Amino acid sequence: MKQLLRVQNFTVSSDGIAAGEDQTLERPFGHHIAPRELMAWAVATAHWPNRTDPGGGRGLDDYFTRDFTHNIGAEIMGRNKFGPQRGPWHDHQWRGWWGDEPPFHTPVFVLTHHTRPSFTLSDTTFHFVGGDPADVLARAREAAQGKDVRLGGGVSTIREFLDADLVDTLHVVVTPVKLGSGLRLWDSPDELMDRFHLEVVPSPSGVTHHLFWRK
Amino acid sequence: MKQLLRVQNFTVSSDGIAAGEDQTLERPFGHHIAPRELMAWAVATAHWPNRTDPGGGRGLDDYFTRDFTHNIGAEIMGRNKFGPQRGPWHDHQWRGWWGDEPPFHTPVFVLTHHTRPSFTLSDTTFHFVGGDPADVLARAREAAQGKDVRLGGGVSTIREFLDADLVDTLHVVVTPVKLGSGLRLWDSPDELMDRFHLEVVPSPSGVTHHLFWRK
Repeated sequence: MKQLLRVQNFTVSSDGIAAGEDQTLERPFGHHIAPRELMAWAVATAHWPNRTDPGGGRGLDDYFTRDFTHNIGAEIMGRNKFGPQRGPWHDHQWRGWWGDEPPFHTPVFVLTHHTRPSFTLSDTTFHFVGGDPADVLARAREAAQGKDVRLGGGVSTIREFLDADLVDTLHVVVTPVKLGSGLRLWDSPDELMDRFHLEVVPSPSGVTHHLFWRK
Repeated sequence: MKQLLRVQNFTVSSDGIAAGEDQTLERPFGHHIAPRELMAWAVATAHWPNRTDPGGGRGLDDYFTRDFTHNIGAEIMGRNKFGPQRGPWHDHQWRGWWGDEPPFHTPVFVLTHHTRPSFTLSDTTFHFVGGDPADVLARAREAAQGKDVRLGGGVSTIREFLDADLVDTLHVVVTPVKLGSGLRLWDSPDELMDRFHLEVVPSPSGVTHHLFWRK
């Protein structure tokens, strides 16, 4: 089967916003967005990757968090998902938000115009790559060894790969929170319906899952 | 994490019936039930285990068929799921409904009072076991090597393990077809709500997913 490029568990506000514009070390999602609030639906599930206790719900939302690693062999992420720095890498102390055990467990390709050596934390290796989306995807596919590739975000990265028509499936979670300003994935999910099938599935938790797959 | 006992993709009619009572070689689900009709929701998905072409939907229903093998290390099934024969095994020609490539890919424990040697088809090994549900589950858990165990059905087997309070999660799919008579899983899903959380999720395909997990 073809190696798909998949967006998974990507969460936006009711007005389509995933992050603020003034990202800092203290506020990885930007000024007015608390990651815990936006991701509360996922944090409550049994398969939330960062869960350390045995609890958590096993309803609908859990099917999405448990699918996070399923048949994924690599991730591509934007530099702003990796960290708050901009421009050349001044030092190599920063190794991502995730501590010594990142939840990826595969090679991760971080998009950047600035070179930096690869490094490994536990079973995740971060590579720093430039080039156009098709080139980066080709490298990620090779590293994924037959499995699919996750497109991890943020918003700018997803839009760039959508513009290049490289995305095969998207799972976007819309939360009932309205944010007003920030980095916007869409004005409406209808924007994608020329190229994708769409199913809209309300969850008992209050979020609404949007499932897109290529026509 | 604990090894769960999970019912997955188990499909019943709107009146709770999963099989007719007069199962034969020609009608594996009993006299008035066409398996294709009951399972149409699953057959239409990209991850339907028997799919041979690259098509299929990737909406909500597909999350359930793709979860079929996820973290499953063994299956327990009733004898009537394995075949239409009753009583002692007269010969060992019958090796299940699934041909040379069964969709299980793990050890399978078939409940029977009658001894029969184990055999292997591709990466599935069938064992024939007696004993009470807790004993069978202990054997299946050992074979699953840390992974979960699927309880494959049919109705009588699921009810037996529910009566013994051994089931951790159930995913039951209710189709809009009404059957009237046959082997009934429940009169109403409410019967399980003293022991389980329940989320009821209508699918755009017309079926309704019922997700139970232990309180």
